[in-house]
Amino acid sequence: MHQAVYEGDRRLRVIDVPETAPGPGQVQIDVAFTGICGTDLHILHGDMDRRVTTPAVLGHEMSGTVARLGEGVAGWATGDPVTVLPVLPCGACRTCAAGHGHVCPRLTFLGIDSAGSMQQRWNVPAQALVRLPETLDLAHGALAEPTAVAVHDVRRSGLTAGEHAVVVGGGPVGLLIGVVARHAGAHVMVLEPSPQRRALADRLGFPAADPTGADTAALVEDWTGGEGAAVAFEVSGAAAGATAAVHVLAPRGRLVMVAIHATPREIDLHRFFWRELTMLGARLYSRDDMSTAVDLVAAGRIPAADLITHVEPLHRAGEAFAALESGAGVMKVLLDCAVRR
Amino acid sequence: MHQAVYEGDRRLRVIDVPETAPGPGQVQIDVAFTGICGTDLHILHGDMDRRVTTPAVLGHEMSGTVARLGEGVAGWATGDPVTVLPVLPCGACRTCAAGHGHVCPRLTFLGIDSAGSMQQRWNVPAQALVRLPETLDLAHGALAEPTAVAVHDVRRSGLTAGEHAVVVGGGPVGLLIGVVARHAGAHVMVLEPSPQRRALADRLGFPAADPTGADTAALVEDWTGGEGAAVAFEVSGAAAGATAAVHVLAPRGRLVMVAIHATPREIDLHRFFWRELTMLGARLYSRDDMSTAVDLVAAGRIPAADLITHVEPLHRAGEAFAALESGAGVMKVLLDCAVRR
Repeated sequence: MHQAVYEGDRRLRVIDVPETAPGPGQVQIDVAFTGICGTDLHILHGDMDRRVTTPAVLGHEMSGTVARLGEGVAGWATGDPVTVLPVLPCGACRTCAAGHGHVCPRLTFLGIDSAGSMQQRWNVPAQALVRLPETLDLAHGALAEPTAVAVHDVRRSGLTAGEHAVVVGGGPVGLLIGVVARHAGAHVMVLEPSPQRRALADRLGFPAADPTGADTAALVEDWTGGEGAAVAFEVSGAAAGATAAVHVLAPRGRLVMVAIHATPREIDLHRFFWRELTMLGARLYSRDDMSTAVDLVAAGRIPAADLITHVEPLHRAGEAFAALESGAGVMKVLLDCAVRR
Repeated sequence: MHQAVYEGDRRLRVIDVPETAPGPGQVQIDVAFTGICGTDLHILHGDMDRRVTTPAVLGHEMSGTVARLGEGVAGWATGDPVTVLPVLPCGACRTCAAGHGHVCPRLTFLGIDSAGSMQQRWNVPAQALVRLPETLDLAHGALAEPTAVAVHDVRRSGLTAGEHAVVVGGGPVGLLIGVVARHAGAHVMVLEPSPQRRALADRLGFPAADPTGADTAALVEDWTGGEGAAVAFEVSGAAAGATAAVHVLAPRGRLVMVAIHATPREIDLHRFFWRELTMLGARLYSRDDMSTAVDLVAAGRIPAADLITHVEPLHRAGEAFAALESGAGVMKVLLDCAVRR
C-alpha cells in the first residue's frame, strides 16, 4: 500500500510499503480522504523536527471505513464509516483528571507523534474511532476534524446568541469558526488581507474587511454601534492580527488565541487591565467537540463544497502540498487515499 | 479645612479652603484616614495628566464618619462609620447593563476624575457610601478599598480551595491578594525581589522567593509537585514579572493581570495556545467585592498592623508621598485627615 512520508529536510515522498495487520485493540481503516492541515505544512518545513521522528506518515484530518478489527475490539463492523479523534492523553496526570486531556503534557497526537492517515490503510487504537453517518459524503467527513477545532474555539469563547464576533484571519479554520459562531447565533465579521479569501467570506455571507493599514478598532466599533466586539478569534498568526484582536474588543471582551505564534508578540496588557479583557488559548478539541462537529458536517451546516478547493490522489501528495502553499485562493486540499480495487 | 492638592508638575500642596455644604443627594464625610495608592503616585508623577484636571484633590482609599446629610438623603445618620465605593458608572451603556459598571467606558472615579478624600471633609454621592462596623478601627477601615481590589482579583481568577497560586510582586496589593487567596483555601507563593518585602511575606506565612535571575518556572514546578500553578497574579508591573506569570502556570492555568503595564509587553502566545492558558484583566471591584472586603477587614483576616507601616497627618502629605517612594520597606502609608477639635 502507499503512504506519503516526510523524510526530513523538506522532503515528502510517496512510497509503497507492506500492509500491517491491526494489533490487539486496534482497528484498521481504509482511508478515504485526508486533508492537509497547516500543521502538516509546518512539519514539512522542518519547524517541528524536534518533535517528529522521521520517516513520518503525516495526516490527522480524515475519513474512511473500518477494514479489519484487531483482537479484542468490539462494537465496530467492516464498512462502518469513521473519522478519528487523533488525541491520546496519558490519562494519569492532573490535567487529564481535570477533564482537559487534550492539553495533557504527555499527549500523543496521531499524525505527529505517531503515524497518521496519509496512507491507504491506517491502524489506530479503537478508542480513537468516531462514527460518521452512513449517508455522509466521505470527502465532507474529512472536514470533521477542522470543524471540531472551530467548535472548540467557539465553545471556549463562551459566545452567546446576539453577540458580535470578529474572526481575524479568513483561512479554512477562520471561516469554519465564523460558520460555527454564526450557527451559535452570533454576528460575525472577518478580517482578512487576501481578496480571494475575502470573496469567499463574502460568499458565505460574512462582512469581510481588509485589515491592511485600516483602523480595525474603529471599523469594528462602527459595526457594533460603538461598543466593540464581545469576542475575537485570532487565527492569523501575524503580529498585526494579535494586536487587532485585542483592540476590537468591548469591555469584558474575550480573545480566543487559535493561531500558532512561533515568537512572543507585543501585547497591550494595559488594555487587558483597563477593559478587563480575557484571552483564552484554544488548542485541539474534546470528544464532545468532535461529536458536535460531525453533527454539523452531517447536517450540511459546513460549506464543504466551498471550502474543499482541491482533491488530489495520494500519489500526488507532493503536488497537493505545493498547491496549498501556492496561494490564498487555495482553501482545503484533500488527498484521495482510497484503494482502487 | 485642609486638603492635599495636586497642582501639576509633580507639585503637591496642602491648602486651606472654605468648607462646602453637601449638595442634594450628597453626604459630607469627616474623613478619618486616606491611604496613598500607587495610582496617586502615578498622578503626582504626571503620568495621568491627560485624565486629571488640576488642581486635584487625590485619595480614594479611606474611612470616616458621616458628618452631614444633603437634601433628600435617607438611611444614614451623623457619626455612622463609612468607607466609599469610588466607582460611579454611567449606568446606561451595554457594559453597565451587563453588570460590569466598574469597567464602564464613561466611568467617573472619585479621587481621579473628581475630588478625592485627601481632605478633612468630603462630599460624595450618598450611593457611594459603604457602611463600616461600629467596632472597626478606622485606620484598618481605610484598607477596605485595596482589599476590595484583592477580593476582585481572586474572584476573577476563579480560584478554588486546594489550588496553587503564585503572586508576582509582593507590595501591598500583592500581599492582600495572597491573604485573600489563602483565605479562599489556596496554597500561595510570593515572588518578590525586595528582601524587606519577602521578609514581610514570610512573616505572613507565605513561601517567598526572589525571582531575580531565578528559573521561576522550575521553582514553581517543584513547589507544585511538577504540575505548575493553577493561578498567577501579575502585580509587579515589570516585563519580567509578566513573563514569569505566564511560565509558572499549569495547563489551563489562569493569569490575572492586576498591574498597570504602561507599554506593551512581549507575551509568549504559543504558551497560551499550547497549555490553553487564560489571561484575565482585573480592574477595580464591584460593590459585592467591597462588601466582602469590609467583612474580611472587620473579621481581622487582613494583617492591617503589618501592612500599615506609616501614618502621617494630612498637613505632611508631601512627606507621606516621599516616604512611599523611599523604599520597598514602606508598605501602606495612611494620611490622618481627622479634624482635631
